Amino acid sequence: MAQNLGARQTNAGVDYISSFRKLTVFEEPGERVIALATAGNLATSQAVTSIVSERLGARKGEDSIYTSKTMFNVAQIVGRALRQVIDEHGEHVRESGGDPTATFILGGQIKDRAPRLFLIYAAGNFIEASAETPFLQIGENKYGKPILDRTISYDMPIERAVTASLVSFDSTMRSNLSVGPPIDLITILAGEQRVERHASIEENDAYFTELRKTYGDGIVSLFETLPDPDISNWPPGPSC
Amino acid sequence: MAQNLGARQTNAGVDYISSFRKLTVFEEPGERVIALATAGNLATSQAVTSIVSERLGARKGEDSIYTSKTMFNVAQIVGRALRQVIDEHGEHVRESGGDPTATFILGGQIKDRAPRLFLIYAAGNFIEASAETPFLQIGENKYGKPILDRTISYDMPIERAVTASLVSFDSTMRSNLSVGPPIDLITILAGEQRVERHASIEENDAYFTELRKTYGDGIVSLFETLPDPDISNWPPGPSC
Repeated sequence: MAQNLGARQTNAGVDYISSFRKLTVFEEPGERVIALATAGNLATSQAVTSIVSERLGARKGEDSIYTSKTMFNVAQIVGRALRQVIDEHGEHVRESGGDPTATFILGGQIKDRAPRLFLIYAAGNFIEASAETPFLQIGENKYGKPILDRTISYDMPIERAVTASLVSFDSTMRSNLSVGPPIDLITILAGEQRVERHASIEENDAYFTELRKTYGDGIVSLFETLPDPDISNWPPGPSC
Repeated sequence: MAQNLGARQTNAGVDYISSFRKLTVFEEPGERVIALATAGNLATSQAVTSIVSERLGARKGEDSIYTSKTMFNVAQIVGRALRQVIDEHGEHVRESGGDPTATFILGGQIKDRAPRLFLIYAAGNFIEASAETPFLQIGENKYGKPILDRTISYDMPIERAVTASLVSFDSTMRSNLSVGPPIDLITILAGEQRVERHASIEENDAYFTELRKTYGDGIVSLFETLPDPDISNWPPGPSC
């Protein structure tokens, strides 16, 4: 079973921790929502997620994402946890031929502050999305990047961004058969500090199936309209 | 200067060696045509190409691509040269933080045999294209693979294959700004054992510019026709 929900009564209300395979969400509705998606070494990913989750219990100290005043500070906490895990296990994993690295996408909002989105590298450092760089990717990212480069903009409607993301996943799945559903997807509304919707899209999902077919047929049709080069006007080979 | 042509009078006729940056062609028109494209460490690539070229002079011995009876044997020769170069320099390059590896695409035909296409890995081993796997890529290959997966087929006209390749390069150039023209492109006609056409496509090439615009506009139009998910029917987040 993929989904794992936890709730904790606190002074402020109820906290939620939701886990969907590679996606974990920390929610104190109305106050803060923090989503952490992961790619790479599974043991590293889970260890980092566990460290970040356990520190919630304390609810104080500089390394609690529930007392962090900024998303930037949350990114630092995740980065430090990631570096700690790789410092501890990395050499041993490499000795047995494995790759201990993992990367994270961290998104969310703390009340009265702007929503922010970070990509945290295996070294623990990170970059932030912006109006000019409105999306971030981790994992098997290259196959699906061209369609995002052509379609994603900072102020597009959320439905359109979801559609573009799913087309990007489709391209990735077609080019690397080891990538596949389910795709976990959440939407967060700016200013509400809570998860609005969550979808877990399976192989046979009706919408995704239609989208894949419409896009695939559309690309083939588009390709048919593209002009061909006039090869007969190219220079001949050197022996001619 | 990009192009470097050489010709050598032999008993059999005239041999041609043509070099276009990352592409080298060995031609004995009507008898054999062998094209070698390279990606990766430039010193390794050039050393391998030089070794293969110099051995032409001998025109005998098992490591001459001019006496090889099969393209498979030519692939073995290139693979051995690649391994030799990496054996000699690899460790030193790695010590200074570099990556000594290179990969090659080898295509061509020897008279009375089928045309063949190989991808030679840094380890010197190789795979061959087939009706089911009709294209091979080296270098920064992932961004441009989805469009090839959707459009390339084994028996398509050569003009269409060229068009698909250029769209693939366009996607790569958009997603990785360090990749750019010129694009060297040759066509070889099966059964003639010679280069039919060679084009070096520059940034401002009129056809390529039109192709990029037509495809880019087409993708945006296609995206506009794609159905959006009905997010309002997705399950709400755990806190709702």
